[in-house]
Amino acid sequence: MIIRDRPSGFRLFLLLRGSVLPRILPTLIINIVIATLVTWSHGDLYTLKITLTTIPFTLIGLPIAIFLGFRNNAAYDRFWEGRKLWGELVLRSRNFSRQCQSLIEYPEPATARLGLTDLRVRMIYRAIVFAHALRDLLRQQPMTNELQALLTDAEWQQLASYSNKPDFLMLRMGDDLRQCMKEGRIDPCLVVAIDTTLSAMTAAAASCERIRNTPIPFSYTLLLHRTAYIYCFLLPFGLVDSIGFMTPFVVAVVAYTFFGLDALGDEIEEPFGTASNDLPLDAICRAIEIDLRASLQDDFVPPPVVPVNFCLT
Amino acid sequence: MIIRDRPSGFRLFLLLRGSVLPRILPTLIINIVIATLVTWSHGDLYTLKITLTTIPFTLIGLPIAIFLGFRNNAAYDRFWEGRKLWGELVLRSRNFSRQCQSLIEYPEPATARLGLTDLRVRMIYRAIVFAHALRDLLRQQPMTNELQALLTDAEWQQLASYSNKPDFLMLRMGDDLRQCMKEGRIDPCLVVAIDTTLSAMTAAAASCERIRNTPIPFSYTLLLHRTAYIYCFLLPFGLVDSIGFMTPFVVAVVAYTFFGLDALGDEIEEPFGTASNDLPLDAICRAIEIDLRASLQDDFVPPPVVPVNFCLT
Amino acid sequence: MIIRDRPSGFRLFLLLRGSVLPRILPTLIINIVIATLVTWSHGDLYTLKITLTTIPFTLIGLPIAIFLGFRNNAAYDRFWEGRKLWGELVLRSRNFSRQCQSLIEYPEPATARLGLTDLRVRMIYRAIVFAHALRDLLRQQPMTNELQALLTDAEWQQLASYSNKPDFLMLRMGDDLRQCMKEGRIDPCLVVAIDTTLSAMTAAAASCERIRNTPIPFSYTLLLHRTAYIYCFLLPFGLVDSIGFMTPFVVAVVAYTFFGLDALGDEIEEPFGTASNDLPLDAICRAIEIDLRASLQDDFVPPPVVPVNFCLT
Amino acid sequence: MIIRDRPSGFRLFLLLRGSVLPRILPTLIINIVIATLVTWSHGDLYTLKITLTTIPFTLIGLPIAIFLGFRNNAAYDRFWEGRKLWGELVLRSRNFSRQCQSLIEYPEPATARLGLTDLRVRMIYRAIVFAHALRDLLRQQPMTNELQALLTDAEWQQLASYSNKPDFLMLRMGDDLRQCMKEGRIDPCLVVAIDTTLSAMTAAAASCERIRNTPIPFSYTLLLHRTAYIYCFLLPFGLVDSIGFMTPFVVAVVAYTFFGLDALGDEIEEPFGTASNDLPLDAICRAIEIDLRASLQDDFVPPPVVPVNFCLT
Amino acid sequence: MIIRDRPSGFRLFLLLRGSVLPRILPTLIINIVIATLVTWSHGDLYTLKITLTTIPFTLIGLPIAIFLGFRNNAAYDRFWEGRKLWGELVLRSRNFSRQCQSLIEYPEPATARLGLTDLRVRMIYRAIVFAHALRDLLRQQPMTNELQALLTDAEWQQLASYSNKPDFLMLRMGDDLRQCMKEGRIDPCLVVAIDTTLSAMTAAAASCERIRNTPIPFSYTLLLHRTAYIYCFLLPFGLVDSIGFMTPFVVAVVAYTFFGLDALGDEIEEPFGTASNDLPLDAICRAIEIDLRASLQDDFVPPPVVPVNFCLT
Repeated sequence: MIIRDRPSGFRLFLLLRGSVLPRILPTLIINIVIATLVTWSHGDLYTLKITLTTIPFTLIGLPIAIFLGFRNNAAYDRFWEGRKLWGELVLRSRNFSRQCQSLIEYPEPATARLGLTDLRVRMIYRAIVFAHALRDLLRQQPMTNELQALLTDAEWQQLASYSNKPDFLMLRMGDDLRQCMKEGRIDPCLVVAIDTTLSAMTAAAASCERIRNTPIPFSYTLLLHRTAYIYCFLLPFGLVDSIGFMTPFVVAVVAYTFFGLDALGDEIEEPFGTASNDLPLDAICRAIEIDLRASLQDDFVPPPVVPVNFCLT
Repeated sequence: MIIRDRPSGFRLFLLLRGSVLPRILPTLIINIVIATLVTWSHGDLYTLKITLTTIPFTLIGLPIAIFLGFRNNAAYDRFWEGRKLWGELVLRSRNFSRQCQSLIEYPEPATARLGLTDLRVRMIYRAIVFAHALRDLLRQQPMTNELQALLTDAEWQQLASYSNKPDFLMLRMGDDLRQCMKEGRIDPCLVVAIDTTLSAMTAAAASCERIRNTPIPFSYTLLLHRTAYIYCFLLPFGLVDSIGFMTPFVVAVVAYTFFGLDALGDEIEEPFGTASNDLPLDAICRAIEIDLRASLQDDFVPPPVVPVNFCLT
Repeated sequence: MIIRDRPSGFRLFLLLRGSVLPRILPTLIINIVIATLVTWSHGDLYTLKITLTTIPFTLIGLPIAIFLGFRNNAAYDRFWEGRKLWGELVLRSRNFSRQCQSLIEYPEPATARLGLTDLRVRMIYRAIVFAHALRDLLRQQPMTNELQALLTDAEWQQLASYSNKPDFLMLRMGDDLRQCMKEGRIDPCLVVAIDTTLSAMTAAAASCERIRNTPIPFSYTLLLHRTAYIYCFLLPFGLVDSIGFMTPFVVAVVAYTFFGLDALGDEIEEPFGTASNDLPLDAICRAIEIDLRASLQDDFVPPPVVPVNFCLT
Repeated sequence: MIIRDRPSGFRLFLLLRGSVLPRILPTLIINIVIATLVTWSHGDLYTLKITLTTIPFTLIGLPIAIFLGFRNNAAYDRFWEGRKLWGELVLRSRNFSRQCQSLIEYPEPATARLGLTDLRVRMIYRAIVFAHALRDLLRQQPMTNELQALLTDAEWQQLASYSNKPDFLMLRMGDDLRQCMKEGRIDPCLVVAIDTTLSAMTAAAASCERIRNTPIPFSYTLLLHRTAYIYCFLLPFGLVDSIGFMTPFVVAVVAYTFFGLDALGDEIEEPFGTASNDLPLDAICRAIEIDLRASLQDDFVPPPVVPVNFCLT
Repeated sequence: MIIRDRPSGFRLFLLLRGSVLPRILPTLIINIVIATLVTWSHGDLYTLKITLTTIPFTLIGLPIAIFLGFRNNAAYDRFWEGRKLWGELVLRSRNFSRQCQSLIEYPEPATARLGLTDLRVRMIYRAIVFAHALRDLLRQQPMTNELQALLTDAEWQQLASYSNKPDFLMLRMGDDLRQCMKEGRIDPCLVVAIDTTLSAMTAAAASCERIRNTPIPFSYTLLLHRTAYIYCFLLPFGLVDSIGFMTPFVVAVVAYTFFGLDALGDEIEEPFGTASNDLPLDAICRAIEIDLRASLQDDFVPPPVVPVNFCLT
C-alpha cells in the first residue's frame, strides 16, 4: 500500500511509484503510434478513407461507462472488504486476548514469563501464528520459521503437515478450550463468549479465502477489455478530421484513463497480493503481534513495519 | 467459474471459452446483416428514406443506460450474495466441527476411526452431506450415492423420501443435539452455541433457495430486451448518413456490448446453475468435505476439484 | 410474480402478460396522437412555430436520469428487502420448529399425531398461522377459515378480536414458553435461544409493516411524474425538424421506456400487493406450512402453489 | 409524510400540497424573469453580446449530475435509515413487552389492571414513554403531560430534570431489572435477553441522535448550491440563440427540477422534523402505545393517528 | 464540522468559512490566468493554432465522471462510517454504564460519591477516558491531564507508558470484570453481556484505526488528479473558438467544481482530523462524559461543546 501525502501541483505528473503508468506503457505506446500514423495519413487506409466521426464513440461510450463504473466499484468493494476482514481479525485478536486473561481462572494473572506451559499464554501466542498463517495461505507463500517459538514443538510439527494451517490452529484452540472446561477453569456460559470469538476469527479467515478464490466473472473482464481496446484503437479515425494534429495527444489521454482504470482494477481486485496497491498484510500481522505481546507484558515486542520507499507491504 | 489469467494483448480477441459471444451470435449476425442491407440501400426502404439521425439514439440511450446499469448491478449482487452464502456455509461447517469436538464431552477425542456410532462423527459427516444436498436442491439434480457411507443406512433411507433434504438433515441434527443433552454430555449454555451454528446453516440454505426461486422481476427483463432490440435494429438507419460504409462495423460493436452485457446478466443472475460463469458449487462442496474429514483425521481425504479447460464447476 | 423463461427473439414483442404496456397504454396513446399532430403541422401551433430543438431535452435529460435511476433503485430495494424479510420468516420458522423439537424436553418426540394438546405441536402450528396472518395484514384482506384447525378454539376466538393478529400470536408464543419454563421442560439458557427466534420473527413482521406503511416520499413521485410528462409531451416539437415523419415512432419508444420504468417502479415499490410483479406471498406461506407440517410428520401436507398462467401469487 | 394515491393524468400538475413548488417559488420566479429579459434582449447585456452556447452547460452538467445524484442518495439514505431505526424501536418495544410478560416470574399474568405497582406493567408503560421522549428530543419540543399517568409521580419528577430523557428512562429500566434479579424473579440467563433488548433500544435512540446532529458536510451543500445557481441563471444566455422565445419556458423546467430536487433533499435530509415529507413520528409513537397497551389488555387504547389533509405527522 | 443553516439566496456566494475555495484558490487562479491568455491569443501558441474542439472534453469527461463519482462516494462512506463508529461508541458507553449499575451486585446503588474505590464507578469513569484516548490516538495528539482524576494514580502512570492506550484500558476493564467474578458479584451469564459490550467498544476503536490507517489507494488519487488537471488546463483551447471572451469565466466554473469536489474528498476522506469538515470528536467525547457522569449523579457535569464561528471541533 502506498503511504504518502499527495504531491502538490505539477510534481504530480512526475511520479512513477504508485502510478499504474509502467504497467500500461506498452499498450499505450502502441496506441499512440497508431494514432500518429492515422493523423499523418489523415485517416486513410491506403486510398480508403475510414469514415468515422465522433458519434459512434459517444454511443459506445455508454456501455463502456457502465462496464468501467461497475468493474471499478466491484474491485474496490473487494479491496475494502478485504481490509475490513483484516481489521476484524485485529479486533477479534485483541478481544481474544482480553477474554483469555479475564474469563479463564488461574491463581495468577497471565504474563509472557509463564511461557507456553500456561494455557492462556499458549492460546494468545497461537492467535499471533494464526494471523501469519492466514497471510501466508492467501499469498501462497511458505511459512517462515520466525514464529516457531510461539508454538510448542509438537504443535509446530503437526502444523507443517496441514494444508489449511489456520483451520488446524482453530481446532487446537478448541482442544485447549475443552481442556479448560474439563479442569473447571471456566464457566460454560463464558466458554460461549470465547467460542464466539473463535468463530468470528474463522469467519474472517474463510471470507478472505472466498475473496482470494472467486474472481469477478471472467466474461466481464473479457467484455470490458475487448470494448476498451476497440474504442481506443479506433478513436484516432474518429478524431482526426476535427482536431487534426492534436489527435495523438487526446488519444493518449483517453487511453491513459481507460487502460489505467482497468489496470488499477486488476490490481486491487485481488487485494491480498504484494503489488504496490495491495493490502499491507505484513504490517497488520505485525500489529497483531505487537498488541498481543504487549497484552502479556512480553519483554520482546517487535517494532512496527514501516513503509519502504512510501510502500507498506 | 472461469479461472484463468487474462490473456495479454490481441489474444484477447481470439478467446471463445468464457466469452458470451457464442450465446449472442445468432442475434448479432441478424443485426449485422440488417445493418449491411441498410448501408447498401443508403437507409431507404424501397423509395422511402428513413429519416433517422443519431439524436433519437442519444435520447433513448438514457433509459437504456439506467436499465443496463441497474440490471447488471442486480445480477452481480445476486451472484456475489450467492457466493457469500456458500462462504458462510464453509465457515459454519468448520465452526460446527470445532464445536462438536470441543463442546461435547466424551472420554476420547473425536476421530474418524470411531465411525458413525460416535455421535460427534455422525454429526460432522452429516454436515458434509448437508452441503451436497443443498447443491443438488439448488441445481435440481438427484443425489448421487457417493456420500452414502457418511450416513447410517436408516438415515439414508429416510433422506431419500424427503423433498427438502437439507431441512431433514437439520432436523436430525436437532435430534442428536437433544440426545446429547439428555445424556448430559453438553451443558445447556453450550447447546445454545451449537444451535446458533445450526440456525446459521439453515439461514444460508434458505437464502440460497430465495435467490434460486425469486428472479429479477420479469417486466424489467422484458422492458430492457425490447428497448435494446429496438435500439440496435434501428441504429443503422441513424448512422448510415454520417459514417457510411463503417455502419455495419459500428453497429456490430454496439450490439456486441449491449447483447453481451445482457446475456452475461442472464447467466450470473442465477448463480447456482452449471453455466461457465456460475458458482463452482462442486468445488466448494469438496472443500467442505476436505476440511471436515481432515478435522477428524480421516484417512480418506479426497483431492480438491481442479479446473477443467479453465472452468471450475 | 411472473415465472417464465425469456421468450426468444421477436416473440418478445408479442407478450402482454407481465408487461407494463397495458397500464401505460392510455397515456402512451395520447402522447403518440400529439406527436402525430405535431409532425403533421411541422411543429406549428396555428401560425406560431414552436422553436424547440433537441438541446433542451439533453439538458432536462440530466435530472430525469437522476430521478429515474434513483426511483428505480429505491423501488427495487424495497422489493428485494421485502423478499429477504419473507425469506427470513421461512428460515426462522424452520429453526423454530427444530428448536421446539430439540430443546423442549418431553418423554416422546413431537409428531402431529399428538395434536394441539401437545405444547410443541401447538407452537409449531401457530407459527404457520403467524405467516398467514402477516400476509393478510399486509394485503389488508380478512383471514380465511382454512387454518382454523391449527389453533385451539379459544385462541381462534381471541385472534379474531385483535387488530394486529401476528403480534397477538407472538404474545401467545411467549405465554407458552413461560409455561414450559414453569414446568421445568426447558433450561433457562435454552429459553434465550427460542426467544431470540421469536424476536427475529417479530422483527421480520414489523419490518414488512414498515415497508407497507412508508412509501417513497410523495414529492419525489410528483417531481418525477411532472418532469417525465413535460419531457415526453414536448419531445415531438424538438424532434420534428430533424427526423420528420419518424417523430411519432421515436416519441413512442422514448415514452414507452420512461412511462414503463415509472409504472414498474409503482408496482414493485409496494411488493406485498397482488399485482403480477409483486411477491408470491401465497406460495411462501404455503412453503412454510409444508416445511413445518413435514417436520412434524403430519399426514396432511398440502401441495406447493404453482404458477397459473406464468403468474405465482 | 404525505399519504395519498398518485393523481392520474393532468391533475398531477395542479397539486401543491406535497409539492416542493411553494418552497422554491421565489427563486424560480427571479430565474424566469431573468430568462425573459435575456430573451427579450437576445442575450445582449447593453451592447455586449454574451457569447454562450449550450456547450458549457453540457460540461458543467457533469459535476452537477454527480453532486445532485450524490446529495439525493445521501439524503434519502438518512431518511430511510431514520425510518428503519423507528421501525426497530417498534419491534423492540413489542419484544420487550413479550419478554417482560414471559420471562419475569410472577404468580399472575401481567395486565394493565395491576397498575404501576406491578414491575412488569411499570416497565412496559415506561417503554411507551421512552418512544415519546425520544420523539420530543429529536424534534426539540417540550414533553407534554398526557403520558404522566404512565409513570409513577416520583419518576415523572426526576424525568423533568434530565436533559437526555430517553437515557434516564433506560437507566431506570436497568434499576428495575436489577430489582427483579435481586428478588429472584428472573434467571440470570434471561436477564441477558432483556438487557439485549434494552441495548437495542438505546442503540436506536443514539443512532437517531447521530442523524439529527450530523448534517451532510456543509461544503457539499455550498458547492452544490453555488453550481446550481450559476447554471440556472446563466442558462438563458446559452439557449436564447437556438430556441428563441421558448427560452423562459425551458429554463423554468430545468430550474424547477434542479431547485426542486435540491429543496427536497433539504427536507428529507433531516427526517425527524415536522415538514410534510418528514417521518410521521406522532403516528409511530401512537402505534407503539397501541401495541403495548393492547399486550397488557389495557381498557384504554387510543385510536391510531390518521392523516389530516393527506399528511401524517 | 460546520453547523449552520443554509444562507438564503445570493449570500451563498459570499461565504468563505466552510467553503473549499481557500484551499483550491492558487490552482484556480493559475487556471484562470491560462484561460485568459488563451482567450487573448485566440488559442494560438505563437503561430501554432491548437486545434481542439469540445469533442475531446466530452470523451474525457466519461472517465472523469466515473473517477469523481467513485472518489466522492468512497470518501463520504469513510466519513459516514467514522461517524457511525463514534455513534456506536456513544451508545455502547451508555449501555456499559447501565450494565455496570444493574448487573454487578453491590449493597448500594452506584453513585459518583463512592469514588474510584468503587469498582463500578472506576469502570464507568474509565469508559470516559477510553473515548478521549481513542480521539487522541486518531488525531495523533498527546493526552491532556484534564481526565487524570478519572483514573487511579497507578493506572494513570501505567497508561502513559502504553502506545495503544485504548487497548490498555480495555485490558484493565477485563481485569476488573475478572475481579467481580472472583468476588461473586456477578453471575457468569451476565459477564457475557458486559464482555460483549467491551468487545463492541474494542471493535469501534479498531475500526476507526482501520479508516485512519488505510487511505483510498494512492493510484486512484493520482489518476484522478492527473486527468482533472489535464482536463481543466486544456479546456480553454477547446472553448475559445465557440464562446470567445466568456472562456475564462466558464473555465473558472468548471475548474471550481472539479477541484472543489476533489479537495472536499481529500478533507472528508480522513474524517478524524481537525479540518472544518471533519468529525467533531471533541464534542462527541464531551457528550459521552456528560452522559456517563449524569448516569452516576456526578455533581460535576461539564457543559456541551458549542460551535465556535459555526464550527464544532
